[in-house]
Amino acid sequence: MNKFFSVKDVPNIGEIVNEALALKAAPNAHEALGKHKMLGLVFLNPSLRTRMSTQKAALNLGMNVIVMNMDKDGWALETQDGVVMNGTTVEHIREAAAVMGEYCDILGLRSFPKLKDREEDYSEDLFNKFMNFCKVPVVSLESATRHPLQSLTDIITITENWSKPGKPKVVLAWAPHVKALPQAVPNSFSEWMCQAQAEGLIDFTVVHPSGYELAEEFTPGANISNNLTESLADADFVYVKNWSSYKEYGQVYPVSENWMLDNEKLALTNDAKVMHCLPVRRDLELASEILDGPNSLVVKEAGNRVWAAQVVLKRMLEELSK
Amino acid sequence: MNKFFSVKDVPNIGEIVNEALALKAAPNAHEALGKHKMLGLVFLNPSLRTRMSTQKAALNLGMNVIVMNMDKDGWALETQDGVVMNGTTVEHIREAAAVMGEYCDILGLRSFPKLKDREEDYSEDLFNKFMNFCKVPVVSLESATRHPLQSLTDIITITENWSKPGKPKVVLAWAPHVKALPQAVPNSFSEWMCQAQAEGLIDFTVVHPSGYELAEEFTPGANISNNLTESLADADFVYVKNWSSYKEYGQVYPVSENWMLDNEKLALTNDAKVMHCLPVRRDLELASEILDGPNSLVVKEAGNRVWAAQVVLKRMLEELSK
Amino acid sequence: MNKFFSVKDVPNIGEIVNEALALKAAPNAHEALGKHKMLGLVFLNPSLRTRMSTQKAALNLGMNVIVMNMDKDGWALETQDGVVMNGTTVEHIREAAAVMGEYCDILGLRSFPKLKDREEDYSEDLFNKFMNFCKVPVVSLESATRHPLQSLTDIITITENWSKPGKPKVVLAWAPHVKALPQAVPNSFSEWMCQAQAEGLIDFTVVHPSGYELAEEFTPGANISNNLTESLADADFVYVKNWSSYKEYGQVYPVSENWMLDNEKLALTNDAKVMHCLPVRRDLELASEILDGPNSLVVKEAGNRVWAAQVVLKRMLEELSK
Repeated sequence: MNKFFSVKDVPNIGEIVNEALALKAAPNAHEALGKHKMLGLVFLNPSLRTRMSTQKAALNLGMNVIVMNMDKDGWALETQDGVVMNGTTVEHIREAAAVMGEYCDILGLRSFPKLKDREEDYSEDLFNKFMNFCKVPVVSLESATRHPLQSLTDIITITENWSKPGKPKVVLAWAPHVKALPQAVPNSFSEWMCQAQAEGLIDFTVVHPSGYELAEEFTPGANISNNLTESLADADFVYVKNWSSYKEYGQVYPVSENWMLDNEKLALTNDAKVMHCLPVRRDLELASEILDGPNSLVVKEAGNRVWAAQVVLKRMLEELSK
Repeated sequence: MNKFFSVKDVPNIGEIVNEALALKAAPNAHEALGKHKMLGLVFLNPSLRTRMSTQKAALNLGMNVIVMNMDKDGWALETQDGVVMNGTTVEHIREAAAVMGEYCDILGLRSFPKLKDREEDYSEDLFNKFMNFCKVPVVSLESATRHPLQSLTDIITITENWSKPGKPKVVLAWAPHVKALPQAVPNSFSEWMCQAQAEGLIDFTVVHPSGYELAEEFTPGANISNNLTESLADADFVYVKNWSSYKEYGQVYPVSENWMLDNEKLALTNDAKVMHCLPVRRDLELASEILDGPNSLVVKEAGNRVWAAQVVLKRMLEELSK
Repeated sequence: MNKFFSVKDVPNIGEIVNEALALKAAPNAHEALGKHKMLGLVFLNPSLRTRMSTQKAALNLGMNVIVMNMDKDGWALETQDGVVMNGTTVEHIREAAAVMGEYCDILGLRSFPKLKDREEDYSEDLFNKFMNFCKVPVVSLESATRHPLQSLTDIITITENWSKPGKPKVVLAWAPHVKALPQAVPNSFSEWMCQAQAEGLIDFTVVHPSGYELAEEFTPGANISNNLTESLADADFVYVKNWSSYKEYGQVYPVSENWMLDNEKLALTNDAKVMHCLPVRRDLELASEILDGPNSLVVKEAGNRVWAAQVVLKRMLEELSK
């Protein structure tokens, strides 16, 4: 594995999930693999879970880690080519990425979208340039359009919490918020679940108010609905997440119906487990009674971020040592 | 030891001081104890000594450390229950603490009081919630009302610097400042010194201008005075510190007398050693002539922060390995 | 080696360059040397290359590292003596440095000049006080007037990239910028190149518009010119860098001629390699066509920062273990 950016970087979801669960069972089994190897974690935006879990994963593998808060410990990066840099950006991503690649065997990059220009965000220009110029394997720590470590975590968590016969019904349910949020988490969750569905692991439904359609490339084979009540029926896992509009990019529409999942709505499901990538706004996106109740997986799910990161780093280290 | 928040978490001060001094004599003797164990240091406020000394202590014990500057690398936490999170707080402490507990074997938390609502600050609501929700042992890196690593350091430093027969007279002396400061350091120092006095290790006096009385729970058995000159007589250790009023919470009164310790006042003592938790405002809280003179212990005292942190982490690691 | 501040701290440039290149060939050969040793990296200003490369160097030597972003994780330091600290500075450098020296075996300090008062900046008051008060070996991570890790890197890079007979002609060429920048990098580069010239390793020329003369102490023996075209003739290495005026301290003059190096100007040289300390403003300081072309060494040069830092730390560790 030379990059970890989308579900396309993983040949088989079932296999990587099993490998991650084996790491969870023996976290330090591969600590010789990362000896004398350096992971650089580059943050252009804040992070709690990704920051801590990826550091832990790397340390479990015996790696050294340097954290670079580019936005705070460094300066603003230029990403456009062909501009005279006489403004506020101090360094071009061409140099910055190349230099970090000199110091690190593997790099991780977090960069949120600006939510202003859909074409720019969806081109993943910054992530792609970083990857091209640094010349070492890169792990996405969330980019403009995807959050693959989260999505890998989510399928690990679903697998770990499903012991019944047959396939679970997984529902991605839009939720309210006060801010316009990126589509990265739902895009990514959806592309991973569609692939898991293609592998015969789950059945997948996306439900959201009209206007909140995700880009089609992320939902191949998904059952898509605007009816929350219907979609919740027989759900085994409900993945709650807000996002802003893709169509009218970054817009937020008034939604008349109440889309916040609470115990009353949960009762419509097949005693579903409830997931969220966190941070979650209590009683706005998701009812406290669910977060504090027996059906919530959100903390275990966050805990599993370690094993998602660790399996990705392990595969990259194995590739490097070939 | 499952938490380190107040003097009540330590059964015997004399014993823990001796254990800390043994660690100082052989810093790396227990480095197998922390192998594959993760310490997470969570800062909601700035820190120099605590940040560096606690990292060093953990590394001496063979632990891994992740530092999380929640205020800068993360986002604002909600601590109130039952609120709809549609404001500026991004994550509830219930989730944030629980998630950090997933990644770490031991957590440290620094959080200053707001100095606005005494009841809120003295409830230690944030610290208690963090401790309850993270479900791993927690070390206070200074909370609203206490700074126990500092106070343990202080009794270590007093013990190390006292070789005469009998008990030293220790005086906590209020000092001027330009800002309203929390009572955490003096509260904590006082509760540790009162316990040390109860164990027969020292004699303890608190002296401050009228109006600056500490909460009674922190001063059991202390000799309390408003007369600096009288209190300094025969003092062997003078601990200098400013604090704001507990009674009229967070208020600062004009003080007519000069309360700044200088060489003239030091001459009243029994050639006392002078201590301060740092940072110290020179020639406002404490005279430069003392800080630069032979009686100042402030740098050695700060150095001892390592051994206070290390003995606490050692006891927690031993408890975890039971 | 007890400090690394200027070229005067290095007895022989040729020897330290060879030692650094040996470390590059075997990065982990000395990892026992730093075991149980702590490096503290103290930043009063932002940093990318220095931050990452020095951490990597220390880890290669088996050291532990603590990074202290004093400006963000800490507070403002007072450097003046004899002032009543009733303003915005929270801690005096006397205490801050001494305390950090308690926790660390070696310290690194980055502090930029204010560019307002030449005498103050050129006194290197802050760096010198830090060094005196911390009482452990100190590595400059760039101070008001010098950036010695960069300059050592530069002579390593020149040595590594010169295989022809005879000495290379090295030209330090002033370049345009939109901001007033310190003289630290050109001062330092010049003092190292002048010493390398004295050792018979290179020939050295400084070229800049009239008014941008460096302080004479940094240019002993250098060929100094105001004619870019003439200076570029036969150049083997061109080191591009902007700086503000030393004479009218911190001032920036309008420069009529075009001083930005591009392929047309590069054609005047002896197919020179082009260097820059980075970050570089593309197409303002240096043409993209050069940065993206075969003559640019800037990324390799930045990569060599590791070996410069590592050889300095190695020598300090060896001194400590005597």
